[in-house]
Amino acid sequence: MSVIYFLDLFGTFVFAVSGAILAMRKKMDIFGVIVVGFVTAVGGGTFRDLLLGKTPVFWLHDKYYFIVILCGTVATFLFSATILKVENMLRIADAIGLGTFTIIGIEVGLNSNLSPLFAVMMGIITASFGGAVRDVVCQEIPLILSREIYATACLIGGMIYFFLKWLGLNHSLTISVSVFIIITVRMISIRLNWSLPKNEDMKNKF
Amino acid sequence: MSVIYFLDLFGTFVFAVSGAILAMRKKMDIFGVIVVGFVTAVGGGTFRDLLLGKTPVFWLHDKYYFIVILCGTVATFLFSATILKVENMLRIADAIGLGTFTIIGIEVGLNSNLSPLFAVMMGIITASFGGAVRDVVCQEIPLILSREIYATACLIGGMIYFFLKWLGLNHSLTISVSVFIIITVRMISIRLNWSLPKNEDMKNKF
Amino acid sequence: MSVIYFLDLFGTFVFAVSGAILAMRKKMDIFGVIVVGFVTAVGGGTFRDLLLGKTPVFWLHDKYYFIVILCGTVATFLFSATILKVENMLRIADAIGLGTFTIIGIEVGLNSNLSPLFAVMMGIITASFGGAVRDVVCQEIPLILSREIYATACLIGGMIYFFLKWLGLNHSLTISVSVFIIITVRMISIRLNWSLPKNEDMKNKF
Repeated sequence: MSVIYFLDLFGTFVFAVSGAILAMRKKMDIFGVIVVGFVTAVGGGTFRDLLLGKTPVFWLHDKYYFIVILCGTVATFLFSATILKVENMLRIADAIGLGTFTIIGIEVGLNSNLSPLFAVMMGIITASFGGAVRDVVCQEIPLILSREIYATACLIGGMIYFFLKWLGLNHSLTISVSVFIIITVRMISIRLNWSLPKNEDMKNKF
Repeated sequence: MSVIYFLDLFGTFVFAVSGAILAMRKKMDIFGVIVVGFVTAVGGGTFRDLLLGKTPVFWLHDKYYFIVILCGTVATFLFSATILKVENMLRIADAIGLGTFTIIGIEVGLNSNLSPLFAVMMGIITASFGGAVRDVVCQEIPLILSREIYATACLIGGMIYFFLKWLGLNHSLTISVSVFIIITVRMISIRLNWSLPKNEDMKNKF
Repeated sequence: MSVIYFLDLFGTFVFAVSGAILAMRKKMDIFGVIVVGFVTAVGGGTFRDLLLGKTPVFWLHDKYYFIVILCGTVATFLFSATILKVENMLRIADAIGLGTFTIIGIEVGLNSNLSPLFAVMMGIITASFGGAVRDVVCQEIPLILSREIYATACLIGGMIYFFLKWLGLNHSLTISVSVFIIITVRMISIRLNWSLPKNEDMKNKF
């Protein structure tokens, strides 16, 4: 569990940075930057916990989430020039967060006796809801709803997770492989500029 | 209860379609269309369940909600041309969903020992919160806050419900009449283009 | 407790008025004005209760919150010209609400066995989340994220609260002093047009 916990804090850090960057583009002050970073990082897990009735929500039990987010957002605020130089590295880090959060969400769902279908849904919510709230708060149409394979990577990873589990694979290996596959799908989709189909009919019909 | 359950799934389907249509207007991909449809359909009941502490929320107990929403949104995505042709029928369907969701919300509220005032409020939330989130996610000012008799129809239906209950009417009949009245008020208000009063003073004063 | 309860209802009234004013600027109808007023007034406490799992949420236990909000929003709707004339008084009233809500949030957090860090966070959420939702619903970037010392006043007041408590001061006095300090910091920050630092680098870098 300690590797997953480490990856969880790592994902939290990275998601907080992504929130902080968008908040700074929107010219928010330091407080706004911290809040948007916080919401981006814990929003998904918070919403998952609320839906499942697992309250007080997870970050109220463990102050390290808060500390990691504070460090990530304040560092972004202070060293924005440096942060922007490593934006390509941030994409990889974001993919790692995506993979970890998905699998954590699935496991929390299973612990609440959900069926695989809804467990995967909890995984997708954990991984993507924070980013969606970040975009709504910053007055952007949520990226997840309009561009790129994002949730799809979570979905594929979730299905792999249950496939490996069904095969009877060892738990740690199941987790590692699923997280790795989500990261890979996500990175390839960015590189090849994949996207899901749209129905372009609508836009001329209204 | 089976008629109410059937109407509930029917309302879920219709609300999902309404979400999917708006998402497609906003040029979202198939995943975004499904998510917005899902949020529109279950958002109200989910928020009601969260406020009341009835967790895990209702759609985690019954996979038919998910299946119905998946069918509704994917069908909208694939057959948009046909869906748009029947948009007038959609308004009637939407009114049926509105009526059903209101009465379901009231009954859930009463089962949680709420007073009639708050039970009616749960009914309005169940019927209208999903559409409000749909609009926020798609960057529109929520329709419910600015146009047409929508929540008012729920309010009237809710008052009728308690009036009939106070008269001692049979439960099924109380439900049927209340749902029917909400549908009627809603359809008439669309036809006659009714709206609630606004105070136009403000707009020149700021 | 009765002074705090009175101040709580007073803060609820004032926050409802602030929501109603923004809703009217956005040309919402009377229903929208009431809803936005309601969300502004109870949004923070509701979100706090959800995070802590204190459900049904607080305003479902006590109908006076609803009554106070109804009076505040309807009065704003009917007497908008008068309300606007006293807008300076509204700022003072808003600061009183801010102070009261912060301390109430802290005490609710402590009653749920939170550490001081998270109790203060509950205080900030109680005082500012309602206004944030109001702004998102009305399609403004939340004020709290971009302008003025607002949450900072809550933070300072929260720290004073724990400092006085640590000194062993009487409970009523601790509350009164903390609320008073939040009000003072907020009023001074408006008068002197204080704001938190921003990092202006970002806006040219994207």
